[in-house]
Parts: sequence; structure tokens; C-alpha cells
Amino acid sequence: MNCLFCAIAEQRRPAAILYQDDAVVAFRDINPMAPTHVLIIPRRHIESIRTMEESDIPIVGRMFFVARKLGEELDLADRGYRLVINTGRTAGQSIYHLHLHLLGGRGFRWPPG
Amino acid sequence: MNCLFCAIAEQRRPAAILYQDDAVVAFRDINPMAPTHVLIIPRRHIESIRTMEESDIPIVGRMFFVARKLGEELDLADRGYRLVINTGRTAGQSIYHLHLHLLGGRGFRWPPG
Repeated sequence: MNCLFCAIAEQRRPAAILYQDDAVVAFRDINPMAPTHVLIIPRRHIESIRTMEESDIPIVGRMFFVARKLGEELDLADRGYRLVINTGRTAGQSIYHLHLHLLGGRGFRWPPG
Repeated sequence: MNCLFCAIAEQRRPAAILYQDDAVVAFRDINPMAPTHVLIIPRRHIESIRTMEESDIPIVGRMFFVARKLGEELDLADRGYRLVINTGRTAGQSIYHLHLHLLGGRGFRWPPG
């Protein structure tokens, strides 16, 4: 399968990986929109929240627990951070491998885009 | 505990509830930032992702599965939708009961705020 994020998870493509375990990989976004901008993905190919199955509940929850840990390690927790998942093209999803954006290190306006 | 979202979950305060089960409640945001803007919360009081425990992984994952179902029911899935969790004040978190914003029915810019 020709998926960029599968390739990063399998280390067939380079990325600035900040965290990985048996189920989740986190790496810096190459087009950062904040001083800290990390993408957190499941190793397994899930296309988007739109195709999430009930059996995916633990892996999606785990992505947010990794976000919490990275928020602490990257010293974002005191100031705060925004977590975003885009689902579908008009929402801005450009890669169809589920990914959570962790953005921090600056203030954020409302609405979120 | 004087928490607005606990009060909504326990139906002590009114809200336009769209979905509820034993663990999750979803209702319309009173300050909508998109044609469809829903808040999805755990019934149990979790302050934010910053204080998320490993034992909270299933409930956080479940919030996203509810988002997926609501995305279908509210006819957002084809066009797409944006999912946002703010953590801390500079990210825009105003109520310290974990809540997931589901926004749809329009296009979204990047960055997300």
C-alpha cells in the first residue's frame, strides 16, 4: 500500500520521530503551523475517523494518551495545546491515514479554522 | 461539584442533547462556530487531556466513535468535519470538563486557529 504514513511508521521513509511504541508513532509535521507541531498516528492503517470501527476505540484513545505524554515532555502542558483531527477533504485531511495534530507553543484563535 | 458539563450530563441544566449512552453525552454548542457544532463529553468528570490517565483511554476513544456516528447521522461525513480538543487556557479551553468539538457543514482553513 502506497501510504506515506505507513512508510514513516515502518521507517521506510524518514521523519523526525519523537515517540513510538508497538501501536503508535509520533513525528514532527514537515509543515509546522505552531512552534511545536507533532503528528500522532496508529501504526495500523486506519483511513480516518469516518471509517473508524468500534474495535478501534482503544487505539484512538491511546493516541490521545500519547499526546498527553508528549505535551508534558515537550513542555507544552502549562501553556496549553490544541489537538485536531481532520476528517475528509473540506476539513483539510490531506493524507488518508488517521493522524492527530498536536499543536503548541503559541496561542490559538477561535474558531479553529 | 459546580461543573456546567456535569450538570448537563446529569440533566440538571438544559442542553440540546443529540446523543447519550451510559458513558458519553453529546449536545449542541451554544456558541456555534459552524453550521453544525456539537460537544461530546464523558459523563465522568475528567478535567482535560492534560490530566488524562491511562485508564481513560477507552472513554476518550469512545468519544471519537460517537463523533463518527454523529458525523453520519448529521450528514457531515461526505463533506467532512473537524474534531478539536483544547487543552489549557492559551489553547482556548474555557470549561474544565473534557470536551470534543465536532464542527461541520462548512470548509475549514489551515492552521486550525
